[in-house]
This record gives sequence, C-alpha cells and structure tokens, in this order.
Amino acid sequence: MKKSQSVVIAGGGSTFTPGIVMMMLENSDRFPMKELKLYDNDGDRQAVLGEALEILLKEQAPDLKFSYTTDPKEAFSGVDFVMAHIRVGKYEMREQDEKIPLKYGIVGQETCGPGGIAYGMRSITGMLDIIDYMEEYSPEAWMLNYSNPAAIVAEACRVLRPDSKVLNICDMPVGTLRRMSQIVGKTPDELEVSYFGLNHFGWWTSVKDKESGYDYLEDIKTYVAENGYLTQVEVDTQHMDESWQATHKKAKDLLAIEPRFLPNTYLKYYFYPDYEVGLSNPTFTRANEVMNGREREVFSAARDIIARGTAENGGFHIDSHASFIVDLARAIAFNAKERMLLIVENNGAIANFDDDAMVEVPCIVGSDGPEPLSQGKIPNFERALMLQQVTVEKMVVEAYVEGSYQKLWQALSLSKIVPSAEKAKELLDDLIEANKGYWPELK
Amino acid sequence: MKKSQSVVIAGGGSTFTPGIVMMMLENSDRFPMKELKLYDNDGDRQAVLGEALEILLKEQAPDLKFSYTTDPKEAFSGVDFVMAHIRVGKYEMREQDEKIPLKYGIVGQETCGPGGIAYGMRSITGMLDIIDYMEEYSPEAWMLNYSNPAAIVAEACRVLRPDSKVLNICDMPVGTLRRMSQIVGKTPDELEVSYFGLNHFGWWTSVKDKESGYDYLEDIKTYVAENGYLTQVEVDTQHMDESWQATHKKAKDLLAIEPRFLPNTYLKYYFYPDYEVGLSNPTFTRANEVMNGREREVFSAARDIIARGTAENGGFHIDSHASFIVDLARAIAFNAKERMLLIVENNGAIANFDDDAMVEVPCIVGSDGPEPLSQGKIPNFERALMLQQVTVEKMVVEAYVEGSYQKLWQALSLSKIVPSAEKAKELLDDLIEANKGYWPELK
Repeated sequence: MKKSQSVVIAGGGSTFTPGIVMMMLENSDRFPMKELKLYDNDGDRQAVLGEALEILLKEQAPDLKFSYTTDPKEAFSGVDFVMAHIRVGKYEMREQDEKIPLKYGIVGQETCGPGGIAYGMRSITGMLDIIDYMEEYSPEAWMLNYSNPAAIVAEACRVLRPDSKVLNICDMPVGTLRRMSQIVGKTPDELEVSYFGLNHFGWWTSVKDKESGYDYLEDIKTYVAENGYLTQVEVDTQHMDESWQATHKKAKDLLAIEPRFLPNTYLKYYFYPDYEVGLSNPTFTRANEVMNGREREVFSAARDIIARGTAENGGFHIDSHASFIVDLARAIAFNAKERMLLIVENNGAIANFDDDAMVEVPCIVGSDGPEPLSQGKIPNFERALMLQQVTVEKMVVEAYVEGSYQKLWQALSLSKIVPSAEKAKELLDDLIEANKGYWPELK
Repeated sequence: MKKSQSVVIAGGGSTFTPGIVMMMLENSDRFPMKELKLYDNDGDRQAVLGEALEILLKEQAPDLKFSYTTDPKEAFSGVDFVMAHIRVGKYEMREQDEKIPLKYGIVGQETCGPGGIAYGMRSITGMLDIIDYMEEYSPEAWMLNYSNPAAIVAEACRVLRPDSKVLNICDMPVGTLRRMSQIVGKTPDELEVSYFGLNHFGWWTSVKDKESGYDYLEDIKTYVAENGYLTQVEVDTQHMDESWQATHKKAKDLLAIEPRFLPNTYLKYYFYPDYEVGLSNPTFTRANEVMNGREREVFSAARDIIARGTAENGGFHIDSHASFIVDLARAIAFNAKERMLLIVENNGAIANFDDDAMVEVPCIVGSDGPEPLSQGKIPNFERALMLQQVTVEKMVVEAYVEGSYQKLWQALSLSKIVPSAEKAKELLDDLIEANKGYWPELK
C-alpha cells in the first residue's frame, strides 16, 4: 500500500492547473494523494480556478482534501511535494518578452534569447520565495519545478539555493519522445534515450527499445530528415496549433546542420533566427494566442462550472501529457528508479563540459533524488554552442545577484540570438523599462 | 660579434616586401644578414619587386647577397629564417572574401567571419608547402609566420605540422601598443603587457612601465573611453586611412561592453557587426583600396626604380612598424629572451581554457622558441566568446583535412558574425564557387 501524498501546486492560478489536477486524479493509483492545495500570490485569479476545482473534486475525488490559498504558511505546511509552475508577470509580461525583441527584428520568445533573459530576471525572486516557504514549512518536501525559463531558474537554484531539494524538469523532451515513439510505432514507455545538452538546447544520441536494445536513431533520423517531428497521429488527434506544427517540421533543418543526432526543437531559435522572425507577427505573438485562446477557454470553463455548480460535462480538459510530473513525484516518493531527463549540475556527466554548468541529461531518479547518467564526451561544435548559451544563463544569474547592468548587457551580447552589442544595449534599456518592479534595480 | 643570418622571405611579391627589406637593412646592427632571398610562386609579380630591390640593395647593402626565385630548393636551402607573409589568391581573392559576405549583409573581412574562413581554407596548403620546403632544405631553420588569417593558419600548423619550428605572430598588438605608448607619453620599448585571447580576439590586462612597474591600464582606459586608440601623434604623422582611424576610434565601444580590459580592435567585427556592415561599401572594399592604393604605388615605385636604374629618391618606404619581425628573429638567433605576444598552443597559459587551443599570450622568446607566460584564469564572458571563435577555427581546419562540407557549414554557422545556419549555407555555396582551384574539394 503506497503512502498517500500531500501536494501543493505553486502557481495555482495557471491555465495548466486544472489539466494537471485532472491528470493527477487519473494517476491516483500510481500516486495516491490525501491532500491537494493550490497556492498563488494572485488570489483573485486563483480563486476562479480554485472554486471550480473544488466543485470538480467534490464530485470526482470526495476523499481528497482540497484547498486554495494565498497564505504561504497554510500552503506550504505539511506537504510532501511542491509542484511549481509559476509565471512571474503572467502573459502580459510574456507579451513584452516577445514583442520588445521583435521590434528590433530579433527573435521574441519566452525562453530563448532576450525574452528568456527578461523572463529569467523576473522569475528568480519568485522561485526563491517558494523554495524558502517550502524549506520553512515542510523541510522534508521536494519541489518539482517545471517553471520557465527552466535553464535560468535552474542555474539560480544552483547558485542561490544549492542544498535545496528542487528538481528541474522540462516537458519538451517528453513531448518529442512521444512523437518519436509514434514515428517508430511504439509507446514512449517502450523507449529509453541518451541525450546531452542544456534545457531547450540539446540532442538525442540514442533512442533504444527497452526490450530488444535496438537503437531507432537512424530510423527516426530518416523520418525527421523528411518531415521533422510532425507525425500524422498528432495532426489527426491533437488539433495542434499551426505554429507548433511549424516548429515540429523545422526539426528537419536542425537535423541538416547536425546530422549525427536528433535535435531539440528549440534549437531553431539559435540556428534559424531569421526564419523565426520572418514567421512572427510583431503585433500578435504567442502570448496573444494564449491569452485569446487557452486562457480565455480555461477561465470561462471555470466560471461555467461555478455558475452551474457542477463539473459534469464541464470544459476542463485532462492534460495527460503532463504525466511526467507524476512519474517524477512517484520516483521520489516510492524510490521508483525512473529514468528521466532532468536539469542537473553537470559534475562530469558530460565529460568535456564545465562541472558547474546546469545540463540536461538522463538521470535515474529515486528517493534520494537524481543520479545523472554519464554521457561521455560531446563534439566540439555542440560544446562551443552550449558554452556560449550556458554562459549567458550564468551571467543572467550573476547580473541578478550583483544588480549589474554591465553583466546583463554582456549576457545579451553573448547570446547567439542577439546580433550585436549595440542592439543588445537598446534591447536592455527597453527591457529594464518594461520590467520595472519585476527586476532588481541594475547599476 | 653576432653571427650573420640568411633569410628567405616567402611571399616575395607582397607589397610589404620592400618596406620590410628596408626595415631589415635599418636593423642590421641588431640583426646582421649575409644573405637575403625572395621566394614566390608568382614569378612575374615577384620579379618586379626583386629587380627593383636588387638595384636598391646594390646601392645600400653591397655586401648582402641577394636573389629572388620561384624554385623552392634554391629559395629554402641554407637559410636560418623563413619570413612568411604569403597571400594565397592575392587581393583578387581577398576582394571575394569581402564582397561575398557583404552581399548577404554580413561582415566581409580578411580574417574575421566568413571572409577569414574562406581565406583560411585557401591558405593552409600554401603554408604547409613552405613549411615542408623549409624542413627539407634547411631543417634547422625557423619560420616566422605573419601570414593571415593567422589564427586558422596557426591551428593548421598545430594539427598538421606539430613539430615544425613555426612561430606565429601578428602585428596588430604591436601597433596597438605603439598607440598606447603615445597615449601615456612613453615608447613601446618602455612598456610591457599582459594579454589573453586568440589572434585578432583578445584583451590587455596590464600595460606596465618596465622600470617603475606602474600599470598604465586605468590611464589608457580613461583615454580610450573617450577617443578609442586614435592618437593625435598618429593622425598628424601617419596619414592614416579614414577606415583605420574609424577602427581605432571604435575601441571606445569595445571598452564599453567590457570595461575591465583594453580590447583588440578586431573585436569590433564580433561585437558591432551591424555597424561595420553599415560602414562598408559592398562594391568597393578594403581589397579595392589596397589594389588602387598601396599595390599600385609599390609596383609603380618598383618599375620606376628599374627604369631609372637607381633606388635613389625612389618610392619604396621603410616599414619601421614591422621591426617586431626583427625582434622575433634576433630573439631566436641570439637567445635574446624577448617578451612578445605570440600565437601558441595554450597548454595552461590561460588556465581555464582548452590546452589544445591556439591562443595569443605574452611569451619569452629565446633560441629554443617561446615560453608562454601564464595568464591565469579569465572571466566567463571572454572564455565563452573565445571558445566559440577557436572552435570555428578548429572546425575550419578539420573541414580542410576531411574535405567536409558539413563541418565547414557548421563552422560558418557557429561564427558569431554569421546570423543563421541558412545564411551560412548560402554563403558557403558562394564561397565554394569563388574558391574553385584554391580549396580542397568538399563532400
């Protein structure tokens, strides 16, 4: 009999919260819960989802103790896990992250380049706050962090909370593995991968059949060289946005520049920034799509549930793809020794890369946390690209810690996405203005 | 009494040859010569300078044995030093190196970015040829190589002729030190520097008075923050091209992005490529300036000397600035233990940088060659930029060795100067076409 767990979701007001809560209900045999709490520092926003989920949970999981709060003590006391998907500044600030660079003809993206840097500078304080709450009120708990920009957030944790029990994980490799499994007619569970890189910046070096050991790498490459990662299964079943379809297709060109490995799709922002800018509408970006789409849908579904007083035939949709969060939680809770990609301090996992870099590699996760699997030496090309990018991430955290304008200017100038130090400075001045009240003051 | 030396200049047809020969005459007390030969694989071009120099030397150094030849055996036999300033493809190909990138709105420059990569691919075979001639006909000789692109050429020597006695040196740090000395009212000989970087990609960390030990770094920074390296002395005395004036001034903005150190002026191509492209005329580049200016002047001065049968009142001008070549030669010949910046294999000189990278650092040069002076650890910002650039250089040499289209595409994509993999591929295809007969065939 598995011990029932207490969980708090930090970022309770996220549009992802209902889907994740429903996914957790569905996985209650694998990961039984006795209590679930939502925490957010925006009480009004969270209350809408909280009230609707209260109705839903009373109907679907009457034994689960549920609450939502803006009080840290209430939220973080007596929990086994903190699941963190915070978004400091919400979609209004994401919109700025995307639109300010685009004004200069530079990629505007949530996690890559100037947008990611701006978002990173905003997110560090928020992340530290919830880590500190967890450590104060539930010192034995683990945080499962899938807040973006994961690379910068993970580096900030490494530097500023080195001993905290925070696991940084990203859903992108999970999603791509799902597509790979469709390509070869398997389920993701039947495959196991080798991978090296940084978050949103890496390459698969093998995709093996768990049973036979057969490596599908070449088969998948052959498919990707033609179609990218876009699979007919997903086109038919997922009602995928056109912009995501384009992203998965573009992997074809990422394989072209490095045919040895299978690429993370986010590499397109680094290798093909001009193409990405060409696709972008500087006045209507992904943040606008989300605000007009998912955000509106989720909150109106919540309001509808509240108005009707029942979640039956309600508009909340289960987010089955997020089940990696349960995989991770149960690996910790029940010492499951699950093999997963996590963002961890390198310490030799990539042999010819800095020990103190936060890298993304396969790990074996048990009750003591992750044990990274050694990925050996990587080629010079990837190594140089990764050092450039990880140094940007490190310098953002240094700029945050030191309140240094100079370091943040250098970080922006160093980014592969930013074409010059001059553009970097113009961008920086705009970003400072837009992020007043969110960033530490820079001198 | 110093032993008189035998020297061959490889690239005898260079516009720099007369000025360097005259500089060597002027330095004959420091570096006595008994024989001087010119070697070039373009006999017609060299003959013009050779015939004129023969007239000049008969008048000014009648005891010096002088000859010019296209025969490697004749040229490279019985010499103590090979001074190499070859330019494979001459200015006609430099013009292509500059104009092809500019077509795409990308920096077109002799040594930086795509132009430097193209020139590097052309130069390796030529460099290996003259190294092999030297080793066959004068196995005890040293080569003093100041051929561009020095970084790629030096890496090719490291990989392909690891045991050869080749010293790679660049005149740029020497020229900048001259300007620094003017700024503080000293002579270059009174100063000694610390420096780290790659060729055309580095920073001074100290500029000390040899006698007092006083470090002028902050004083020079104060001047450079205002004026760059442009000094009134040079403006008044050197009739400096406007484009060079702009280069020296621009150092101001290089100091702005990294205020800790004094920058090598070539960094402007990496930090301010958009500014540089804005200054460029895509139909009339530096190669055109040189072909219309220095090349025409030097060759018409030569023809005039030949026609008149005397070099008296002739148009050859001494290149006093090139005296670093004599400094280097005499350091080897007479074990002078001269402190100079050279391009050498790192091997820990920069503590936190790859051992097998060709770096530019101060060395003590004696008869056994250079002993690099340890420069300690460098900051993350410079380290990441340098790894990106040195990896480009390494991959160019690998592409040359393997005949690999893919590696050269990757090298171009990795360059900070090239904005995307797509542009890199278009550039590469153009460069291959333009360099037919010069590059190895790429597959």
